[in-house]
Amino acid sequence: MNVGVVGCTGYTGYELTKLVKKHPLANLTLLCTRDPSEILKDQRFNFLTDINRNKTKICELDKADFSNCDLVFFSTPHGVCMRYAETLLDLGIKVVDLSADFRLKCPDSFEKWYGIKHRAKDLLDSAIYGLPELYRDNISKGDLIAMPGCYPTAIMLGVLPLINHTCFDSLIIADCKSGISGAGRSLSRNNLFGEVSENFKAYGLSGHRHHPEIIQEIKGIVSKNKNTKLTSELDLIFTPHVVPMFKGLYASIYVKLKDKISQSELIKLYRTTYGGEQFIKILPEHVAPETRFVCNTNEVHISVNDSLNKDFVNILVAEDNLLKGAAGQAVQVMNVLFGFEENAGLE
Amino acid sequence: MNVGVVGCTGYTGYELTKLVKKHPLANLTLLCTRDPSEILKDQRFNFLTDINRNKTKICELDKADFSNCDLVFFSTPHGVCMRYAETLLDLGIKVVDLSADFRLKCPDSFEKWYGIKHRAKDLLDSAIYGLPELYRDNISKGDLIAMPGCYPTAIMLGVLPLINHTCFDSLIIADCKSGISGAGRSLSRNNLFGEVSENFKAYGLSGHRHHPEIIQEIKGIVSKNKNTKLTSELDLIFTPHVVPMFKGLYASIYVKLKDKISQSELIKLYRTTYGGEQFIKILPEHVAPETRFVCNTNEVHISVNDSLNKDFVNILVAEDNLLKGAAGQAVQVMNVLFGFEENAGLE
Amino acid sequence: MNVGVVGCTGYTGYELTKLVKKHPLANLTLLCTRDPSEILKDQRFNFLTDINRNKTKICELDKADFSNCDLVFFSTPHGVCMRYAETLLDLGIKVVDLSADFRLKCPDSFEKWYGIKHRAKDLLDSAIYGLPELYRDNISKGDLIAMPGCYPTAIMLGVLPLINHTCFDSLIIADCKSGISGAGRSLSRNNLFGEVSENFKAYGLSGHRHHPEIIQEIKGIVSKNKNTKLTSELDLIFTPHVVPMFKGLYASIYVKLKDKISQSELIKLYRTTYGGEQFIKILPEHVAPETRFVCNTNEVHISVNDSLNKDFVNILVAEDNLLKGAAGQAVQVMNVLFGFEENAGLE
Amino acid sequence: MNVGVVGCTGYTGYELTKLVKKHPLANLTLLCTRDPSEILKDQRFNFLTDINRNKTKICELDKADFSNCDLVFFSTPHGVCMRYAETLLDLGIKVVDLSADFRLKCPDSFEKWYGIKHRAKDLLDSAIYGLPELYRDNISKGDLIAMPGCYPTAIMLGVLPLINHTCFDSLIIADCKSGISGAGRSLSRNNLFGEVSENFKAYGLSGHRHHPEIIQEIKGIVSKNKNTKLTSELDLIFTPHVVPMFKGLYASIYVKLKDKISQSELIKLYRTTYGGEQFIKILPEHVAPETRFVCNTNEVHISVNDSLNKDFVNILVAEDNLLKGAAGQAVQVMNVLFGFEENAGLE
Repeated sequence: MNVGVVGCTGYTGYELTKLVKKHPLANLTLLCTRDPSEILKDQRFNFLTDINRNKTKICELDKADFSNCDLVFFSTPHGVCMRYAETLLDLGIKVVDLSADFRLKCPDSFEKWYGIKHRAKDLLDSAIYGLPELYRDNISKGDLIAMPGCYPTAIMLGVLPLINHTCFDSLIIADCKSGISGAGRSLSRNNLFGEVSENFKAYGLSGHRHHPEIIQEIKGIVSKNKNTKLTSELDLIFTPHVVPMFKGLYASIYVKLKDKISQSELIKLYRTTYGGEQFIKILPEHVAPETRFVCNTNEVHISVNDSLNKDFVNILVAEDNLLKGAAGQAVQVMNVLFGFEENAGLE
Repeated sequence: MNVGVVGCTGYTGYELTKLVKKHPLANLTLLCTRDPSEILKDQRFNFLTDINRNKTKICELDKADFSNCDLVFFSTPHGVCMRYAETLLDLGIKVVDLSADFRLKCPDSFEKWYGIKHRAKDLLDSAIYGLPELYRDNISKGDLIAMPGCYPTAIMLGVLPLINHTCFDSLIIADCKSGISGAGRSLSRNNLFGEVSENFKAYGLSGHRHHPEIIQEIKGIVSKNKNTKLTSELDLIFTPHVVPMFKGLYASIYVKLKDKISQSELIKLYRTTYGGEQFIKILPEHVAPETRFVCNTNEVHISVNDSLNKDFVNILVAEDNLLKGAAGQAVQVMNVLFGFEENAGLE
Repeated sequence: MNVGVVGCTGYTGYELTKLVKKHPLANLTLLCTRDPSEILKDQRFNFLTDINRNKTKICELDKADFSNCDLVFFSTPHGVCMRYAETLLDLGIKVVDLSADFRLKCPDSFEKWYGIKHRAKDLLDSAIYGLPELYRDNISKGDLIAMPGCYPTAIMLGVLPLINHTCFDSLIIADCKSGISGAGRSLSRNNLFGEVSENFKAYGLSGHRHHPEIIQEIKGIVSKNKNTKLTSELDLIFTPHVVPMFKGLYASIYVKLKDKISQSELIKLYRTTYGGEQFIKILPEHVAPETRFVCNTNEVHISVNDSLNKDFVNILVAEDNLLKGAAGQAVQVMNVLFGFEENAGLE
Repeated sequence: MNVGVVGCTGYTGYELTKLVKKHPLANLTLLCTRDPSEILKDQRFNFLTDINRNKTKICELDKADFSNCDLVFFSTPHGVCMRYAETLLDLGIKVVDLSADFRLKCPDSFEKWYGIKHRAKDLLDSAIYGLPELYRDNISKGDLIAMPGCYPTAIMLGVLPLINHTCFDSLIIADCKSGISGAGRSLSRNNLFGEVSENFKAYGLSGHRHHPEIIQEIKGIVSKNKNTKLTSELDLIFTPHVVPMFKGLYASIYVKLKDKISQSELIKLYRTTYGGEQFIKILPEHVAPETRFVCNTNEVHISVNDSLNKDFVNILVAEDNLLKGAAGQAVQVMNVLFGFEENAGLE
């Protein structure tokens, strides 16, 4: 199976390139980047310049020949994948987009939040949201996959068992924390060591792009579930924060319930929902997830706590924002698309 | 004015000692510590071994002669101050306790949460809770001051304007984050660099000692306020987390309201409440507090956000956990006790 | 091939356990640790408690039955391996000791530097120093391997080409820097986040245990080489420092030369010496090694610089102190011992 | 005394602004910056926007009226101060330049290392090198002061007692380490948290701008000292490294000696040389300096070690690169220029 990767110098693109390179069932045949000569000098990419160099073609996106690829990943800024997706799909190549181009079903919402005109609106309907634990079947038959954002992945996996349950009421408060790699490798003063180290802060107080994505996905699930009856309109309070570390994402989620659910029922509900999921671990009572135990893995660790409060439960979720929150999940999706073991290349 | 400090090698005790030493109106006459010889070798205490060495007596607690002190600070493990307070008070010496010995009015609650028998129950009633923005008048007339914990300081200052307002309903969710210095300087594996660095986690899922303290204080305020009518019993969900940094504390607080309040009313309410408070800054709309801007100061920065949600507002609070959350506030209290300018020695 | 690991909760022991567990040609059949029940609760060891749990026996050292092991690693405090080595060797089991018990050939020197009486002096002669790039043949025939310390590994690999060259004079200055994991996971105040973070310092000014080890090894090489003629007695100045990071070791080495050697000759000398070594990379001119590019690998990156000085060259070496500096090199040695590909389980 | 500061948003400029603002004998009357409106929104500069706002004029450099200033600091990129110095000096205003414009006496050398044409060559001769411990008298009579770089400050103070001593031979090896703030606040990928954190590296292998500055200053001292007789031409090997921390600079210096000097003589030599210097501390034997104990002070801590080697001694020096290495030393120089206590505003 031949794979192309577009965009490999960002933190996500680099992780993705490493994963594809070491994947036992995939060949990294094409690597597109703005300045190919830079990669050959970049010590991170030593593994490319060595033995297998001749197997992987490195070139600029506009000069790329994708014809022998079976799948192409886009780990690019928003707005790039939408310009290439149709051509690739027409060639029978599967497209897995790690940017936001196909996440929001409503193009107006996309244009409002991302400030870019959408140039492939016709493809929005057919794009599958790439969260395997939710949409495994759809993904396996899909051609264009919109990979979820890092926050939506953690939040959706954290609340899924509850929003499908009759006890769910209409409000989710998601207090989230991310390492700085979530902001990418771009040259912004906010990303400097001197501004990040020994500092903790919230950001995005006037609204974050992952907010409409989470709302869309929760609504999608609730609307399909006949048992769920909300007492009022669905509401999400989402506060992202930056943690002085490189990798790791944490979501402390407070979910409002109509009916009381005991701690043991809660753990049982989560264990049942995720029983067959190899990447999701429900922790024992009173054990908190820690980002260090999920970093460099594709795992999500979840702790459920009834909080001694009658109306809210507290769900704690940890993931590696660059792996399960981005590149790892993209490879998981590739495995689903091609019928591989879902953990191939991800152990 | 002569000041004694008991306990100076912990992170809080060290900050306190530095503050007292440089205070323009206080003399550090007595410093009690387990092993005085250790301090003379500790490079942090160079400032003591130099010029002013003869002014400050350094000895073990059991050998201390407090008779010429006007005030004694206890920055000691829980259970120490309660054994000395009565004797000192009888000598007319004011006692400012940074440990938890006199925070909880109910000795049973103290014994349950701290696992120590209370040995000075008779003093509990007269102890004043040392939060100047709330109890300035009481403090100024007090003799025994129980300094608040670091989390309660941030949370109480964050919610005070709202819990005094008619719009307040019965629920507060406080998602809190602290640098590791909050765990003290004791030899615990959890405090090692290798366990803290590049990691984020919640802790205390089975209950945190600051929980009953916050509940006690909020109830105290609500019960005095005739306007406040809760629709159900007061409820607090409190989730503390550890951030991979040394100093700084952040509280992201979600307060439930009965009646909608606009963003502008909310800012006005906070600006009015804290109009005369020099250590409290209400930030402009959509500007988040950052711990780096309050660290090494006695300031608290607060951002208020109506969250576009009809039932909850979001309050973000940042403080230096060792200063406004501990030693700085203790010096502020000393200033109130002796009628000094409240920012003396704290600029 | 069946492998036992003694000591798995320290930073090195944990890395070693992970490497053995995922090694394609080794079975982790026995894991000895002080408190087996602790491991089952330790989230780092999730990989043991899952699928392959029944394959690996976990027990205390004194209760261990090593009889079905082909090799046993000791990742224990100094003084443990020396008490078990003879018994294991008598059973035909190979012993790879990551502690210092068999590094120094002179027992008096060991007792002086480590403060422990040596209890297996008879084995010192037969112990092979486990640096494959130097002693590959001896290792392949050995039974008891003394793994080098993390500093000696970096320094020896950094100076080897030069001390074998006629231009070498008698002095090496090794200014070394290590992440805090080099100090182990023990409960020392020096290892707390609050003491390590935002701090840089030298340590061991009165002497470091790796000093006699490096001297012994350099002398060993020099004495075997007929071309080497030192103008005076061999001298090593070794200054270790702690860097506020977890992993990674850096050696900036200044080697005194009798005869000038040009930059191009120098690079050529190193490239020739290490031509067949897959774990050693000689970097291009003026490119400095960085610890991040060797961390989580078994690689050593070396930069050679003639420093524009007539008498000294500057060699920069980076390694992962827990991998090439400890656990990774131990697995490399296991591969040599059993005739596996030297990078098996280390990619 | 009225002071202007040109450049205040960089890490050094910010520290300098804070120091001048709180200085008991100086008024910060003028603050020049590229975009004054930015400062009013920058939370770091809250202290300006409060009480004393009307005392300090904030404007762009080209619109500045310096006429009522007694002294102007330039904390600007190289090449700025040289364009304004003459005009200011003609107005009788003292100029303290923290950039490199007047450090190198030889304009060709400046142009080679900094890549900028020198536009004020006539002033080079009269510029005084602003290291008070060396040139206090000259500074006190000077008008234009060239502040030393951060590395030269540490190295010069570390070697001064020795290069004035007859035992000094011709070689100094300075292995130096700096926190990332030394690289400034500019938007370079090398300064991102993701590239700095958990990494240690050397840099500037093809030459560092502070190299000619140190050589110039050492030669200056040696040439004035009749006792010093070098056996060969003076040589400096200087290797700078980046440490994953914000502040702090460490120099591990190996100085070659002609004649052996004992540890006790060495300490005595340093204590005598720096006997009256309040900012320089010679540590007890075998106690290493640590950057945390000098950070946020204007102090330099020095440890001297004879290294058990007959030819070299090892000198360890720690300073805060932004204070004694830049802004603090600039204020110290201001104090000398105006006859204030040398530690005014620096305690």
